[in-house]
Amino acid sequence: MTRYTHILAAIDVTEEAEAVLMRAKQAADDHGAKLSVVTIVRPLTQAYTGIEVAGLAAAAMNFEGEARASVEKSLGELCTKFGVDDADRHVQFGVPATEIKQTAEQLGADLIVMGSHGKHGLGLLLGSTANAVLHGAKSDVLTIRV
Amino acid sequence: MTRYTHILAAIDVTEEAEAVLMRAKQAADDHGAKLSVVTIVRPLTQAYTGIEVAGLAAAAMNFEGEARASVEKSLGELCTKFGVDDADRHVQFGVPATEIKQTAEQLGADLIVMGSHGKHGLGLLLGSTANAVLHGAKSDVLTIRV
Repeated sequence: MTRYTHILAAIDVTEEAEAVLMRAKQAADDHGAKLSVVTIVRPLTQAYTGIEVAGLAAAAMNFEGEARASVEKSLGELCTKFGVDDADRHVQFGVPATEIKQTAEQLGADLIVMGSHGKHGLGLLLGSTANAVLHGAKSDVLTIRV
Repeated sequence: MTRYTHILAAIDVTEEAEAVLMRAKQAADDHGAKLSVVTIVRPLTQAYTGIEVAGLAAAAMNFEGEARASVEKSLGELCTKFGVDDADRHVQFGVPATEIKQTAEQLGADLIVMGSHGKHGLGLLLGSTANAVLHGAKSDVLTIRV
């Protein structure tokens, strides 16, 4: 019988994240699988490439640093609640679907668990992420209707 | 803890179907859930609406009847293999994603299991079906990478 051995919960840091992580944790317990968590921050600097405005890049980097710190804090609280070790928490910068798929491959995850309609917002997973992850994911994908 | 109570396996009748149904059956056993199966046949007549060619509609209906019989036979063999009762086997005509979502709602299924890249072909689920099901499905969706 096929059992999952490594489950990757891909979450944003909205109120939907806890529901997704809870279900991923349950699946991991059911399957005796390792549980990792990834959340993605979209880099502001990518959007401004090529625009020469004094101070903009620095401001963007500051913003990203703050965004990352904020995300790591929220992620940390959630992960602690569900018993996910520090080493199994991942914050990536980039396009959410791409980073989720790459992280899953790097970790050797055989199931990605994510919400099916992530809230829109700066630095958060976009609503179309679940669809984009389906394209080219090398693992199974469980989308949770929150 | 959240447990699924009714799982709907949405399959085509290609070689991928057996793998998807096997995984759906396993999930149903794990969760103590009821298992239903649906497969969709795309109606030829929809594509020809408005075209006035003598005999075409009749020919298309013949084709559909044969397609349905063929699909029901293949589905029957698969379902028997996995212990799915006659009453829990569903063949629908229409747009696959729409019919899958409707069937799930009518049955009260809380998880849809399907392949993530169905083969292309007449009367079979299309490759983009998994994406389309995600849009508007009222249940969780597990896509299996076959």
